[in-house]
Amino acid sequence: MTRKVIAEFIGTFWLVLGGCGSTVLAASIPDLGIGYIGVSLAFGLTVLTMAYTIGNISGCHLNPAVTIGLWIAGRTKKREVLPYIIAQVLGGIFGAMILYLIASGQPHFDLGNFAANGYGEHSPGEYDIFSVLTTEVVMTFIFVLIILGATHSSAPKGLAGISIGLGLTLIHLMSIPVSNTSVNPARSTSQAVFVGGWALEQLWMFWIAPIAGAILAGIFYEYLSSEIEQPE
Amino acid sequence: MTRKVIAEFIGTFWLVLGGCGSTVLAASIPDLGIGYIGVSLAFGLTVLTMAYTIGNISGCHLNPAVTIGLWIAGRTKKREVLPYIIAQVLGGIFGAMILYLIASGQPHFDLGNFAANGYGEHSPGEYDIFSVLTTEVVMTFIFVLIILGATHSSAPKGLAGISIGLGLTLIHLMSIPVSNTSVNPARSTSQAVFVGGWALEQLWMFWIAPIAGAILAGIFYEYLSSEIEQPE
Amino acid sequence: MTRKVIAEFIGTFWLVLGGCGSTVLAASIPDLGIGYIGVSLAFGLTVLTMAYTIGNISGCHLNPAVTIGLWIAGRTKKREVLPYIIAQVLGGIFGAMILYLIASGQPHFDLGNFAANGYGEHSPGEYDIFSVLTTEVVMTFIFVLIILGATHSSAPKGLAGISIGLGLTLIHLMSIPVSNTSVNPARSTSQAVFVGGWALEQLWMFWIAPIAGAILAGIFYEYLSSEIEQPE
Amino acid sequence: MTRKVIAEFIGTFWLVLGGCGSTVLAASIPDLGIGYIGVSLAFGLTVLTMAYTIGNISGCHLNPAVTIGLWIAGRTKKREVLPYIIAQVLGGIFGAMILYLIASGQPHFDLGNFAANGYGEHSPGEYDIFSVLTTEVVMTFIFVLIILGATHSSAPKGLAGISIGLGLTLIHLMSIPVSNTSVNPARSTSQAVFVGGWALEQLWMFWIAPIAGAILAGIFYEYLSSEIEQPE
Repeated sequence: MTRKVIAEFIGTFWLVLGGCGSTVLAASIPDLGIGYIGVSLAFGLTVLTMAYTIGNISGCHLNPAVTIGLWIAGRTKKREVLPYIIAQVLGGIFGAMILYLIASGQPHFDLGNFAANGYGEHSPGEYDIFSVLTTEVVMTFIFVLIILGATHSSAPKGLAGISIGLGLTLIHLMSIPVSNTSVNPARSTSQAVFVGGWALEQLWMFWIAPIAGAILAGIFYEYLSSEIEQPE
Repeated sequence: MTRKVIAEFIGTFWLVLGGCGSTVLAASIPDLGIGYIGVSLAFGLTVLTMAYTIGNISGCHLNPAVTIGLWIAGRTKKREVLPYIIAQVLGGIFGAMILYLIASGQPHFDLGNFAANGYGEHSPGEYDIFSVLTTEVVMTFIFVLIILGATHSSAPKGLAGISIGLGLTLIHLMSIPVSNTSVNPARSTSQAVFVGGWALEQLWMFWIAPIAGAILAGIFYEYLSSEIEQPE
Repeated sequence: MTRKVIAEFIGTFWLVLGGCGSTVLAASIPDLGIGYIGVSLAFGLTVLTMAYTIGNISGCHLNPAVTIGLWIAGRTKKREVLPYIIAQVLGGIFGAMILYLIASGQPHFDLGNFAANGYGEHSPGEYDIFSVLTTEVVMTFIFVLIILGATHSSAPKGLAGISIGLGLTLIHLMSIPVSNTSVNPARSTSQAVFVGGWALEQLWMFWIAPIAGAILAGIFYEYLSSEIEQPE
Repeated sequence: MTRKVIAEFIGTFWLVLGGCGSTVLAASIPDLGIGYIGVSLAFGLTVLTMAYTIGNISGCHLNPAVTIGLWIAGRTKKREVLPYIIAQVLGGIFGAMILYLIASGQPHFDLGNFAANGYGEHSPGEYDIFSVLTTEVVMTFIFVLIILGATHSSAPKGLAGISIGLGLTLIHLMSIPVSNTSVNPARSTSQAVFVGGWALEQLWMFWIAPIAGAILAGIFYEYLSSEIEQPE
């Protein structure tokens, strides 16, 4: 159990450092910056790489909503849910801390919004609360569906990490302008802790919406997959 | 059968939400926007991710032209063709509806051309009807060829979703400027329903051309693959 | 044999249409264009997708230099070399023809340099003949090495198409500014035929250099791999 | 042994030519240039492609820090460490030499900073020495963790090259603005030799920090993976 929890800690550390780090350090540099497409790729690749690094240790959830969705779908034991979530939140915060250390070494550093998630005036494109809620619920619903499908016993062996990682990339490609893309309460919390103020006030949204989407996916996939023929 | 149809509905929902959503929400943002390359990646990844999510349920067609091409090539049962197509069209429209809900939450929202396909003055690069027709027939021909090859019994197991998804990315990289890239009547219909007017008037093209290309591919691949040695 | 040759024809058709098509139609559009990175991705994905479509039919060479390199390395039969090369050149020219048809449907169409390869004043970055020669020899050398390694009997099964396709992407990422990247005499010929003049005069380079690199790779890999232990 | 060392030489040659080459030749071209995202992709693809080319010959380290990390983790024999490192450094310098030859064929060529790594005023974003040190240690730590996980006996067979290559892409996406991204002493040395002056003076950092990160990863992964159940 200890090693599983440590794996989740390190994995979520990497998700926040690699994903939010790309946002903060590299997205907006004039001419050469990686833009939203680079950030989307970065978030997806954090999950893809960790899937092949710690997938055989902890299952590589890196996300409280994913852990809850997998529990609903009967893929994770109840007694692992809380330790996993705590490790993910702490790992994410540690990732944000290292990111802060690195970013603050630039002259004229300004924390700004870090890579926090928000709605209304704090949405990158100023999308209202209803758009952000819809986006986060639907995106997490599909994300957990992708995870459940790719890791189903009848799916091609070994390729789940590719599909899941690139699925997170796709979700970011579409939804960064809306909510800065969370689908992951640990990722949102890690940034809100440093930004404070509005980011903490809006943080409830990025716990409620992803978890709601994940629970719906857990229930729905159970129904959808109930007639898949098992490989002999 | 019910679960197959629901899978096609959800899959095409995701194709339209992820692909057209990336176009509408994220492509054109100054400096940070994902551009045509991001949109190309998004469309491809909708298919790649769904291939590993519902491939073992419905085969993951997500596209009436693909369903027809697979039927011509003897890979899909005749009685599944119509239910699949209906589910794809409805799923696509539902995806457009959710996209509309999200997009309209931005201040000063303007539907514009959504992510509709068109020719002549409604082609992104104002390509004439003949260019668009050629493009859509040839692109769908190759797309269905890629599908038939990657899912052939002698092809490497489990990798079809990667080749097919990235094939759709490639098709978009080249042809977005010409037709905004359809190769998928359900995707085109989903947008035309919301844009109305010219988009509905030009919609025939994006049913006729992809289906024609798909039928040609189904016939051609049967010939091309007729001497492949089966793995024992 | 007929089906193999037809497969090479169609595959090289797709390489030119998808790769050069992305260059001509989509690279330079202001703000939204796919740039050199999109073109690099497109060329690589033509090979990746065809590897999983016709790899089990013809081996998916799509390139006279590759066919010659594989022959030197003892992977292709001598009697297949000439028919393959003829099919590749004709397929490439047919791809350029369809691309011309599509591109000319835009108002104010200007053929310009199409996607031709060149050196000196016809290099995108005006690199001199020696830089272009070095680039084409070295890039094809590595490309054929990647092919020989990925398709070696001891390499992971089924993944060759991914490594080879993305290898071509990498070669383009680096060398488009130098030579517009050929590494493929059929691709260069297909464009030179339409551009005429300087492109035909400089075409010798894009036959000599890639073939020289491919021959060196064939010889070198034989040496390098001579002690690999075969899987039982 | 000779063939292993030659494989490392060629592989590191390709890492520097493809990765640093993309930086020098293609990153900054106005409008069409590949930017930091293209450079990130290029570095990752050098490793991905070589993994499938020479992975079965030398293990495809291409990096003194990786060789040392694998040695610490008991995956590489002690007597191979020094020959590998020498081959990597020489291969990298040869790659830089060919890159110099190509790049200098452009009119008005200016070596500038080549693709050297640096801190302080020589960091792309002028990050201070502490930020660069932290970045290089942490990034190499995670990189070697990704390598150890993906090549563990319980990991999916054959996919390590994809995860490791894209892991290097991710590392670049985030950290090019900080240190121009090294995580590889051979890559840094190859550029410093040509730039001289400040690049040689700062080179110690890009040996110390990556090797420190790699050693930590070797130790940590041994602990983390000690309870993974072996596949039967």
